[in-house]
Parts: sequence; structure tokens; C-alpha cells
Amino acid sequence: VPWYECVTVEGALSAEQRTELAGAITATHAEETGAPGDLIHVVFHEMPSGSTYTAGRPSTPTLIRGLVRAGRSPEVRLAIQRRIHDACVRITDATPMSVLIAIIDVPATWAMEAGRVLPEPNKADEQAWFAALKQ
Amino acid sequence: VPWYECVTVEGALSAEQRTELAGAITATHAEETGAPGDLIHVVFHEMPSGSTYTAGRPSTPTLIRGLVRAGRSPEVRLAIQRRIHDACVRITDATPMSVLIAIIDVPATWAMEAGRVLPEPNKADEQAWFAALKQ
Amino acid sequence: VPWYECVTVEGALSAEQRTELAGAITATHAEETGAPGDLIHVVFHEMPSGSTYTAGRPSTPTLIRGLVRAGRSPEVRLAIQRRIHDACVRITDATPMSVLIAIIDVPATWAMEAGRVLPEPNKADEQAWFAALKQ
Repeated sequence: VPWYECVTVEGALSAEQRTELAGAITATHAEETGAPGDLIHVVFHEMPSGSTYTAGRPSTPTLIRGLVRAGRSPEVRLAIQRRIHDACVRITDATPMSVLIAIIDVPATWAMEAGRVLPEPNKADEQAWFAALKQ
Repeated sequence: VPWYECVTVEGALSAEQRTELAGAITATHAEETGAPGDLIHVVFHEMPSGSTYTAGRPSTPTLIRGLVRAGRSPEVRLAIQRRIHDACVRITDATPMSVLIAIIDVPATWAMEAGRVLPEPNKADEQAWFAALKQ
Repeated sequence: VPWYECVTVEGALSAEQRTELAGAITATHAEETGAPGDLIHVVFHEMPSGSTYTAGRPSTPTLIRGLVRAGRSPEVRLAIQRRIHDACVRITDATPMSVLIAIIDVPATWAMEAGRVLPEPNKADEQAWFAALKQ
């Protein structure tokens, strides 16, 4: 965690655009929170035509949900939202209105990676976590 | 947001049934909460055979999760659950026991659309949000 | 609910491995919480190659998210995380570092199955819920 899920319609993103957007999301999260890159996952879900609706009508939205460790400030959350929104609009053909970014808090203890409950979102706990992992 | 995800097995829904169910979910959410339709997204995830299990055995469930802005009353949540449940049973071949509806609250500030943090779930804030968008 | 979602890359799991992992997740949840099997759903999302990134680079993670009724103790959550992690490593070719397990609480009242709001996570309420269902 973070675990980012990007839902788009088939064909909306080329392989290059996916890689670029994954890079932008990863860099945003790492820079804004200081979280280690190895914990940052991005998954693209490309939906077949006819699977997505907005206001009850077929649509081509870009829906991004990030599950992140709770404990960041409102300013950090807003910076993540804004930078990912801007990256979507810059990298893809999405119109701003079609882009949704949801950043969802979960307590660090709700997630386990590498067989260990995740550390609280701060440098000291994260370094101790990786040090324990290496032993 | 709201962002509704409907998980079914491949072939469970025809294109017509998807459209009808998307319409029922959208109408339910709009009528029960007053939320503007342009914020209501519905995504269908059709799983290949062999991807879904209940009680450890292959199953054909209808799993619906709605991410909604926090702040509605328990009565509104229950009305949404009941109407979507009933729509599933009416529109699809699902048995009541196979239908799960989860309505998950997230604070409005956790979500951004059109490059703006979402308004609180009330008429005045929503109208101000759309007015700001138009400028 | 619980609703477990397992995200892997295409080809990571054979049908036999999926069945075995679904069984392990179901048994873990049932044994650690006492929850009835009929409420335990497991869905596998196999992502096409090129859909998953970690640290901004293509990766082959195993991402598991369980939506569970709130109210269990930290010890129960940890036992679920550990047993599902161990099952992943034992049943699949996943390395420990590539396995993420997130166990997410939602209030019981946020979910409806069989047309009824779910009971609180204890034996008495669950038995009353199933008894009411049979009438």
C-alpha cells in the first residue's frame, strides 16, 4: 500500500500511456509522502466497451482510486489528487470532467506486505520496517 | 463519486440488462440523495467463469459496491440498498441470496472530479461546486 | 461480506491454484471469525500483462483486499493477514515481498445480502439473521 487502481475503457490508454501514467502516480505519491517506491502499486483495469456509465448513459471515464495509509495531512492528500488529475489530463485524452481521483485512507495495520504489518507512514518506522525485513 | 462497481460472472447480464441496471442504480442514487447525475458512475466487471467463489465453492454472485460521499442518514443508505437489491432481482436472474450490496462512505474531500475536490453532500454546496466549475 | 478480491497477472494462477487459494481464504476467515461460509465471497481478477506496476516498473504482484465486517480484534485481523499471506506463498509461486494483504473494515450495516442488512459479527446476531431469512 498504496494500491492505485485506474479504471478506463478499452483502448483509452496505449502501453506507453499506461507506463507514463503509472510513473506519474508513483512519483507523485513518493514525492508527496516520502513513501518507499517498493510499496507503491498501480493496477490498470481496462473495461470492455459497454461497461461504464455516467448519469445512466454510456461514458468513457477515468476512475482512479488509491488506497493509502492513513495519517497524511489534508494538504498532502490535495497535492496527490491535483497532480494525478493533471497527469491524467496531460498524458491521456481525458477531459477534466471525466477524471475522478479518490484517495482512501486505511490504517497502516490493516495491510501486510512481505509477511509484515505495514509501518506507520513516517520515515523512522518505514526504515525500521525495511531493516527488519532484511534480517 | 458515487462510484458503483458491479461484479458478475460472464454472460450473467446482457447489454440491455446492464443498461437497465445502470439506469436503476443511477435513478436510485439520484432520487434518494439528490446527488447530480453527472457525478454518478457505474462500472460493470464481468468475471470469466472460474473466478468467483462463495463458501469456498464456485458461485455466480452479484456483488455491488458503491463508494458514496459520507453524510447520508441510515434511512437513505437502507433505501439505496433495498432499491438496488430489488432492481438486481427484478432485472437479472439473480436469486436474492446471491446479491450483495455494500454502500461505503468516504468523506467528500477524499475525492476530486473535474479537478476540484467534491462538495459536501447537500444541495447548496453542490450548486456552488457546479457554478464554480462553469467559470 | 466478507468480499475478498485477489489481483494477479494472467497465468499466475492455474484453475487448481485458484480453487485452493479460495479454499484457504474461506477457511481462514471462517475459522478466525466464526463467520458463516455462505457470506464469504472470493473473486479473482487476472490482469493482462502490462497492467501492473510496482515502484513505477512492470511487476507481478499478488494483491488481496478483503472487505470485512468491522468489530474483530486486532489479533483476529493479524491472524487472517498472516494465514492468507502464508497460503499465497505456499500455493502460488509468489515471493513474500510481492504479496499484499489488506483487510478493510466496514460497518455491518453498510452491507446487505439476501435483501437483509448484515448482522453484527457475532454468533447470536448471525443465527438470528439466518433464522429470519428462512421464514
